[in-house]
Amino acid sequence: MVPELSVSRRTRSTPFTSRVDAAGVQAYTVYNHTLLATKFRGFVEDYWHLCEHVQVWDVSCEKQVAISGPDAYRLIQLMTPRDLSKARIGRCFYVPLCNPQGGIVNDPIAIKLSDNDWWLSIADTDVMLWAQGLATGLKLDVTVTEPDIWPLAVQGPKAEELMARVFGESVRDIKFFNIKPMYYQGVAMQVARSGWSKQGGFEIYVNDASLAGPLWDQLFTKGQDLNVGPGCPNLIERVESGLLSLGNDMGYDTTPLECGLGQYVDLEADIESLSLPALRQLPPKRELKGLVMNQACKISDSQVYIDGVFVGEITSHAFSPKYGVHLAFVLCSLSVLGANLKLDIQTDTGLQEGLLTSLPFNFNALGLAPNP
Amino acid sequence: MVPELSVSRRTRSTPFTSRVDAAGVQAYTVYNHTLLATKFRGFVEDYWHLCEHVQVWDVSCEKQVAISGPDAYRLIQLMTPRDLSKARIGRCFYVPLCNPQGGIVNDPIAIKLSDNDWWLSIADTDVMLWAQGLATGLKLDVTVTEPDIWPLAVQGPKAEELMARVFGESVRDIKFFNIKPMYYQGVAMQVARSGWSKQGGFEIYVNDASLAGPLWDQLFTKGQDLNVGPGCPNLIERVESGLLSLGNDMGYDTTPLECGLGQYVDLEADIESLSLPALRQLPPKRELKGLVMNQACKISDSQVYIDGVFVGEITSHAFSPKYGVHLAFVLCSLSVLGANLKLDIQTDTGLQEGLLTSLPFNFNALGLAPNP
Repeated sequence: MVPELSVSRRTRSTPFTSRVDAAGVQAYTVYNHTLLATKFRGFVEDYWHLCEHVQVWDVSCEKQVAISGPDAYRLIQLMTPRDLSKARIGRCFYVPLCNPQGGIVNDPIAIKLSDNDWWLSIADTDVMLWAQGLATGLKLDVTVTEPDIWPLAVQGPKAEELMARVFGESVRDIKFFNIKPMYYQGVAMQVARSGWSKQGGFEIYVNDASLAGPLWDQLFTKGQDLNVGPGCPNLIERVESGLLSLGNDMGYDTTPLECGLGQYVDLEADIESLSLPALRQLPPKRELKGLVMNQACKISDSQVYIDGVFVGEITSHAFSPKYGVHLAFVLCSLSVLGANLKLDIQTDTGLQEGLLTSLPFNFNALGLAPNP
Repeated sequence: MVPELSVSRRTRSTPFTSRVDAAGVQAYTVYNHTLLATKFRGFVEDYWHLCEHVQVWDVSCEKQVAISGPDAYRLIQLMTPRDLSKARIGRCFYVPLCNPQGGIVNDPIAIKLSDNDWWLSIADTDVMLWAQGLATGLKLDVTVTEPDIWPLAVQGPKAEELMARVFGESVRDIKFFNIKPMYYQGVAMQVARSGWSKQGGFEIYVNDASLAGPLWDQLFTKGQDLNVGPGCPNLIERVESGLLSLGNDMGYDTTPLECGLGQYVDLEADIESLSLPALRQLPPKRELKGLVMNQACKISDSQVYIDGVFVGEITSHAFSPKYGVHLAFVLCSLSVLGANLKLDIQTDTGLQEGLLTSLPFNFNALGLAPNP
């Protein structure tokens, strides 16, 4: 039986929730204490629509942790091993946040709004509490808050066209991972070219609850001929694209070096970062790898084996309708993995073989072509 | 339409989840990134069963934040305005945790296991991150972890009898809010007389996942003649009992003094607590009150009014089958409330009158007798 979700004041609704409900949401999850839709027509139908058209996503659950004051940069740099010392205003940065042991606390987008004003657009842990604890303990000259901001994502190949119709042509000039204020009904709100898919698009940092409904409605009115639809981060698309999910594929017990995020760790940088000493010293014990199975399957045990020896755990998986294979992420123990590339996966119909590969998936190199 | 809950690795399952599913759970919520059942047969049926028999609850979502080391007490005292300087080993303490502004970060049970070992059995925010931030910033000599512990609650008037059959007669000697190690299949696990209902009972801090299933099963086998059943924190029972819920009835924007938790704030104590300076100075702006309506109703707007003027917000509510009235908690603005005791509530069938009262509800004083 598929369980219902009990909704309460604690599982926060958003200024878009009435629209999401009216659009026929089938399933939710709870993310940062907030409702996040997971399915409208079905994972597969939602997937194809996202890859071909344009979707509007209520991602209010991406809370903004706003860090302001003379010590804002210092606090953010302490929290991440990525060198932000040369960060420019108006740019977005994917930053693993790590504790002093090197474990991943969160993997937000850091947004530099001014020298003393940053936002962390967070995944599903209470980063505000960690930042407030550090700021209080270190007596930093900053304020750390969670302002009333409800991001709305517009994603898909037709996202730019739809955004231009609502925000004007200049939205086309926003480059990837850049952010700038745009106006909606006279109110300035930050708009970034970003989003949790690889289909292209924007995130609108809506800062006025009374404009949320009108903005949602206008995106649908102006996008009718673009086949705009309601949507949400899609499991199939994000696995295919190699996008990791905090709590699923990484967390306190993994380091960014173990999860393929080494490019966001500046081991040589001369910066004050809580996690760098540990990350410099600890050799990775595990590695997050891709796994490809030749056919759709019902995985019955997330633990995977080589010749009966436990070697790792599947953290996310989905069947790719585009490539006709089942894709997974596997967190492998390097000590037992060795040079092996073939794993055994328990499925409803018995053991099935899977091929280990690097992430993100290189479908070309795997000899896989998209279905026409 | 009632939405489904999408379950993933991020919405952690527990060692009891297979039993909870098999017991016919109808709805879940997500609490501390973990599944928490909310309904089995129905809120009303679950309520009567809890008040009359005994239930087994998977409350693994009550994560333990373990604070160990020479500075353990100092860190916990910094986090709470309740004076814990004379706390005795083996006791449990309900402690609001507050930030330097006096806002409520969490409202755990603090458990003193030894002078240098405490657990915080937390509600739904990442207390570990806040404690780690403070400990790191202040360079305290402590470790702060979330150990693998999955609390199982046994609640209801027949709980003591059932617990004695499984853990032995000595479990009857555990006094309210006391904790001591008991043995199950040779493994010592902490057992407290506590739980999130007012029907009496225990919480077992299960520390061995392989014993979770056998313990669940044995509670059901040995409790058959006691009419044992699966259960979970029950909305009706907790509203009737005046039990507050973090995220629903209180949070960062309320102080314990505003939520009727003044008895857990030691304003005069000579202790080092981050929030005491603010709590000593800030006059409460709001007050959490009880609200009684004469009949069951579908509340259509959580905002409540006096003569058309907004005065507060309903934070939780339920119809009490025992007293035949609809009960609610309301967070009232003291400045507009004045001495008024009657409020207007928007319902599906129009405005309905409600009577303000103190919390917890005093049904006797309200002239309400339980249905026979």
